[in-house]
Amino acid sequence: MKSGKTGVWIIGALGSVATTVITGALAMGKQLASTTGMITAYPQFDPLGLVELGDLVFGGCDVRRGSLMDEAQMICRQTPGLQGLVEDIATELAMVQEQLTPGTGTNCGAAIEGMINTGNGRAKTAREEIDAVRRTIAGFRNRNDLERVVVINLASTEPPLAPASCHDDLETFEVALDRDDPQVARASTVYAYAAVQEDCPYINFTPSNGALLPAIIQLADQQKIPVMGNDGKTGETLVKSALAPMFTARNLEVLSWEGFNILGNRDGEILDHPENREAKIHSKDQVLARVLGYAPHSKVRIDYVPSLGDRKTAWDFIHFRGFLGVDMSLQFVWQGYDSILAAPLVLDLVRLAELAARNGEGGLMPHLGLFFKSPLGVTEHRLAQQFEILLAYAKRIREDGVRLKVMNKKGV
Amino acid sequence: MKSGKTGVWIIGALGSVATTVITGALAMGKQLASTTGMITAYPQFDPLGLVELGDLVFGGCDVRRGSLMDEAQMICRQTPGLQGLVEDIATELAMVQEQLTPGTGTNCGAAIEGMINTGNGRAKTAREEIDAVRRTIAGFRNRNDLERVVVINLASTEPPLAPASCHDDLETFEVALDRDDPQVARASTVYAYAAVQEDCPYINFTPSNGALLPAIIQLADQQKIPVMGNDGKTGETLVKSALAPMFTARNLEVLSWEGFNILGNRDGEILDHPENREAKIHSKDQVLARVLGYAPHSKVRIDYVPSLGDRKTAWDFIHFRGFLGVDMSLQFVWQGYDSILAAPLVLDLVRLAELAARNGEGGLMPHLGLFFKSPLGVTEHRLAQQFEILLAYAKRIREDGVRLKVMNKKGV
Amino acid sequence: MKSGKTGVWIIGALGSVATTVITGALAMGKQLASTTGMITAYPQFDPLGLVELGDLVFGGCDVRRGSLMDEAQMICRQTPGLQGLVEDIATELAMVQEQLTPGTGTNCGAAIEGMINTGNGRAKTAREEIDAVRRTIAGFRNRNDLERVVVINLASTEPPLAPASCHDDLETFEVALDRDDPQVARASTVYAYAAVQEDCPYINFTPSNGALLPAIIQLADQQKIPVMGNDGKTGETLVKSALAPMFTARNLEVLSWEGFNILGNRDGEILDHPENREAKIHSKDQVLARVLGYAPHSKVRIDYVPSLGDRKTAWDFIHFRGFLGVDMSLQFVWQGYDSILAAPLVLDLVRLAELAARNGEGGLMPHLGLFFKSPLGVTEHRLAQQFEILLAYAKRIREDGVRLKVMNKKGV
Amino acid sequence: MKSGKTGVWIIGALGSVATTVITGALAMGKQLASTTGMITAYPQFDPLGLVELGDLVFGGCDVRRGSLMDEAQMICRQTPGLQGLVEDIATELAMVQEQLTPGTGTNCGAAIEGMINTGNGRAKTAREEIDAVRRTIAGFRNRNDLERVVVINLASTEPPLAPASCHDDLETFEVALDRDDPQVARASTVYAYAAVQEDCPYINFTPSNGALLPAIIQLADQQKIPVMGNDGKTGETLVKSALAPMFTARNLEVLSWEGFNILGNRDGEILDHPENREAKIHSKDQVLARVLGYAPHSKVRIDYVPSLGDRKTAWDFIHFRGFLGVDMSLQFVWQGYDSILAAPLVLDLVRLAELAARNGEGGLMPHLGLFFKSPLGVTEHRLAQQFEILLAYAKRIREDGVRLKVMNKKGV
Repeated sequence: MKSGKTGVWIIGALGSVATTVITGALAMGKQLASTTGMITAYPQFDPLGLVELGDLVFGGCDVRRGSLMDEAQMICRQTPGLQGLVEDIATELAMVQEQLTPGTGTNCGAAIEGMINTGNGRAKTAREEIDAVRRTIAGFRNRNDLERVVVINLASTEPPLAPASCHDDLETFEVALDRDDPQVARASTVYAYAAVQEDCPYINFTPSNGALLPAIIQLADQQKIPVMGNDGKTGETLVKSALAPMFTARNLEVLSWEGFNILGNRDGEILDHPENREAKIHSKDQVLARVLGYAPHSKVRIDYVPSLGDRKTAWDFIHFRGFLGVDMSLQFVWQGYDSILAAPLVLDLVRLAELAARNGEGGLMPHLGLFFKSPLGVTEHRLAQQFEILLAYAKRIREDGVRLKVMNKKGV
Repeated sequence: MKSGKTGVWIIGALGSVATTVITGALAMGKQLASTTGMITAYPQFDPLGLVELGDLVFGGCDVRRGSLMDEAQMICRQTPGLQGLVEDIATELAMVQEQLTPGTGTNCGAAIEGMINTGNGRAKTAREEIDAVRRTIAGFRNRNDLERVVVINLASTEPPLAPASCHDDLETFEVALDRDDPQVARASTVYAYAAVQEDCPYINFTPSNGALLPAIIQLADQQKIPVMGNDGKTGETLVKSALAPMFTARNLEVLSWEGFNILGNRDGEILDHPENREAKIHSKDQVLARVLGYAPHSKVRIDYVPSLGDRKTAWDFIHFRGFLGVDMSLQFVWQGYDSILAAPLVLDLVRLAELAARNGEGGLMPHLGLFFKSPLGVTEHRLAQQFEILLAYAKRIREDGVRLKVMNKKGV
Repeated sequence: MKSGKTGVWIIGALGSVATTVITGALAMGKQLASTTGMITAYPQFDPLGLVELGDLVFGGCDVRRGSLMDEAQMICRQTPGLQGLVEDIATELAMVQEQLTPGTGTNCGAAIEGMINTGNGRAKTAREEIDAVRRTIAGFRNRNDLERVVVINLASTEPPLAPASCHDDLETFEVALDRDDPQVARASTVYAYAAVQEDCPYINFTPSNGALLPAIIQLADQQKIPVMGNDGKTGETLVKSALAPMFTARNLEVLSWEGFNILGNRDGEILDHPENREAKIHSKDQVLARVLGYAPHSKVRIDYVPSLGDRKTAWDFIHFRGFLGVDMSLQFVWQGYDSILAAPLVLDLVRLAELAARNGEGGLMPHLGLFFKSPLGVTEHRLAQQFEILLAYAKRIREDGVRLKVMNKKGV
Repeated sequence: MKSGKTGVWIIGALGSVATTVITGALAMGKQLASTTGMITAYPQFDPLGLVELGDLVFGGCDVRRGSLMDEAQMICRQTPGLQGLVEDIATELAMVQEQLTPGTGTNCGAAIEGMINTGNGRAKTAREEIDAVRRTIAGFRNRNDLERVVVINLASTEPPLAPASCHDDLETFEVALDRDDPQVARASTVYAYAAVQEDCPYINFTPSNGALLPAIIQLADQQKIPVMGNDGKTGETLVKSALAPMFTARNLEVLSWEGFNILGNRDGEILDHPENREAKIHSKDQVLARVLGYAPHSKVRIDYVPSLGDRKTAWDFIHFRGFLGVDMSLQFVWQGYDSILAAPLVLDLVRLAELAARNGEGGLMPHLGLFFKSPLGVTEHRLAQQFEILLAYAKRIREDGVRLKVMNKKGV
């Protein structure tokens, strides 16, 4: 049942999250770090034969030119406790660096296009870009003799893509692609489409809505390729999805839930652009109404505060009404390292997407709702229930595996 | 299926929680207030035929002499939004006042004994006190022609009763009671024992461990009387039981969870005495280890800050470790009105205890774990799961009821 | 030395702050409330012969039609501890109501113009409006036989008036007024100009920059009329001006100071309009750079959260660097009632403006810097120093008075 | 005017604060770190000819045996941004290590005595210990050819020394010392007395009240030796002394001020012992009453939370009453590195004590009130005023210096 090497092809491979994912996986592969933060490290997942971290081969692309080693050092400098780590995996990092290629930022908005220094901004049609990405992924797979490549989007948030009827089904989407209409595709669309066509499980860890368009999900369904998104649930929204059900469990009425986020990394810088922020905030907005069953007054702000670096700080103020109409409040302050929170989820998702692909599952993976702010095809936003759904999935796969083995033994 | 009048006999009837319970029930009975904060107000509970709030008759006892009207006015003055409420239920409050009798504070520690001004501190044996309480409850029932009386302990927290072998089973307990050993019983013991003997469902909403001793639970089992406790989960611990599972659902390691509570009502004043506080803090301590599966460093402080009155303010600081061993933090500040948070739970418990008694259930009611900091006979401390357990109970009773009706129709 | 009756003519007389000012002054005049919150209640101010609160006569105008009694009742309902107060001053409130007239909201932006229901939106030239306001103030003075009238702007924040050369000196301003150019004057300009022309000390308690234009200050200088502004320092900025000097006193470098304000009263509603908010935020922005001597990263947000009513809640996050470049943080949460914080300052300002007028002082009153977010003509923003400046002023006036008395006695 | 080498002899030389002081001074001496956090780095202090950081020679003692290098590495590991620093000053640290000698912990309470592993716990009389300390300091001075040695107490907090009449004047104190009564002296007494006798300026940076007893201050007066204490003002109390005056400057009544501190370094561990904590909390307690002029309800808690290491986190809740008796609140959360906050103050104090000694000042140094939680001989606790007092002192010395130079030039 043991899997061979699995490729992880990262869009935005020089970003903070990607660098932390790669650094962490390499460190764990060499037993230099514990698996804290990874859900798939729980013993319930042991019998599933998930791909070992040491069997992951990293590659990817980025619109910026840069050194993975420099990025890793910057993160380790900013994050207490990580100093010294990079030196111990320098060789491995250099090997990953060789797998990286220039990315496309076509039609990603001014903020992201401003970062591009890889010289590939040259005009191509969407079709040409898709083909180029497919060739790149195929090259990565062949060069490294990989059984399977999981593609994951860790790039900065794009401005929202206005929904259009051409996104709704595969056929009209293909026609629109051929026309190369700029409203049809952003860079995230190009990558997602190329990944699925190339038989790669695809994860959209960002709020960019251009990635998992209905047409692309339809393609994934048809081709039996597992895909999932959107937007990793790492900080304030994670707390929200744990806390909001408390008010339901006490019949307390949430009047207002205001959230202020500050952070200073490159993602924060991109989110300082109103059009990019819009996508992010929209993604954060859904949880409350879904969990509470009604929409309290709620505004989410994200501001860029450079001095904070990767530290995400969020203040949430929750105003609620209780017995006899008396109003009360709950506040929380979340102080986390954004990339440190995101990275283990990415590794979990890679392992679980690889498992799904191996098991022949295709289309959306609703059992992974736990990982996302806006889980596609999922109405359950309560964290506790989402966690149980994942555990139940693991249990079912485990039992299916056992049954399968038993059947095999019996010669069925 | 409609129930007749149900008595609610409250130990500590002049305290803040009791006064809010009575005020709220009377106000709701006259449609002057909404049911926000009451779990049994959810539509899932409608088919269960729970006793109507207008069908509750309140009585009880207190070690202090005082006027329910004065207490209600003080609460309404302190709590924004409640002014004017008391005037509209003045007649009803006066009627409840007539049902109140002096309470016993025997063996409750200096703090509570210092409050006694009802003149009944005269020495009696425990047996004599039990008999007196039984007569008082019986009088309350007969005088008001009640179908059933639910007894609920809302008195100030007693110092912990040292566990002794005489508490372990009913037989040795009875012998020890006859000997009138002071280590055997506190006032809470007297009330709980009397209630069960008098066939009254009994709820211990306080952390006083003298109430639901193993011997008394054994008696409740034998006599088919439903009982439950301990310690209403209203504030900081409520948040804990919602938030702690989040760390599990992300495989984040809680290093320290420090909680500081300040409040200024009479309960706070009593808890300012170290021996009384000990019971409270011990009760709050269990949640984390049960939810997380390990015990992080954790200290809970409760300080008396008179200017705050009934407002409970709590600051919790949670230090946790994530991916690559990086540590992060979450803080929350809870600002609630203690009695406003507790009162609807008391009414829920009364209604659900009455239902259980009517259905012939006896002994502990583990489906009510949701309501307690230290739910007896319950290992599940996660709020989301506790809520589902209660809803599942309601569903079962509902279906049993339907089945019963169908069977009745069929003449089975 | 005792003053006769002094008029207080309020622009925005039906707003929360104005209503609280009037309610509070009437209540204190009848000994129903203490002077907590008023700086001029300190014994150092006793010998100055400030006008007694009982000797104030209130009047003013508002663009909304409404009842002062209704507004007062709404405030007292929202604010714990105030219930019952209104009933005791009902007669006095009704007398103030009779003094109120419709206000002008000309050229105040869509948000404020949307509130106008007093029917006086009819087109007038600025000159005509100024004359009308002068007649109204004069009528108020004569009708009530007042020695002096202090005019104070408590209206909602206008959008900023773009600075223009015509504001810079009196002569060109007069010419521009004659031309009735809409860029010349907002409603706040009309009121301020009319007040000074009518020999009334004038206070701009709002951030509206149209009020104390350089030309109007010049007029006040010439006519020996004391004026002061802008923007009462009540909440977050007050804390800032107390806390920021701490970093200087420790040579700690403030990297970022982010402030999030939420509130739900009418002022909050108006500030929800971007153009009005701009004026407010600009006013809040100056303190840090002035106190620290450099401008750290800083963003101030104000969001409208209706459920909070008059409660202003602010979270400030301060990121700072210390020894060896290590960075640390300080956060604060301010929970105040906006009008309750502002009202005593208004009464202090009225009393001190009346004193200045009586003493023949004209132009800006820099000793009142303490009261304002953007004190005109003042570079000192540190609260401690501002307080000492006010106390030094009081001491000087006291000693001048004593010297004067001594001189009088000596027949000088 | 340039000073030669100055010794800094530290009691508790292996503690976190001491290690940070030494590391920081060495790093700054080699231009590896900026002077942020040091008040004497302000240009106002430039003309005073303060001793250069590169001219400080460190020595001292500790009751624990240990390596300064190890301690420095631990601090740099725990504190983000400091990694790599230790390597660059390894030689210098090794030279300081050679200057360290075993310390005495006699009569310091069980907590501190439990740390002693230097083998010098052998019974000596207080006189013998004093003589030994004097010989050690003299040896340090001679060995390093130092112009002057400043002694500073950075050891863990001792339990309070009960005040006794024998502490009140020098004569009776000497007699009591001769009797070797254990109530007369703790280790801190031994060091302070020895320092003054040895003509060393002495600073008590801890709350240990055994150090600057009245008798010892009397000796310092007589011998013209500058001394000052107690208890460095670094965190929560610093904020208090900046914030509390705000309430005075608005005539707001502080009802309650509750402070909760958590920290995890060795100081925190020692403070976990009730008798040691008592000294600390008592020291923190004075500020409010002194600043406000009345004593609100106030409790300060300090809890040991090992996972936090050197990070001190404090939550303060301030409940206050404003206009019309309405109550409101302010909370703050302070997150600092204790040693990083303390170390620059220690260097400031060393430089200013050396200056005072050079200028022939003796006894208490009230101009240094700014640095202490319980400044001896100082009633001014408001931070802004304390800072102005220090600047005024610097100005006076500067002007005296100029005058002196002018006089010298004139041949006076």
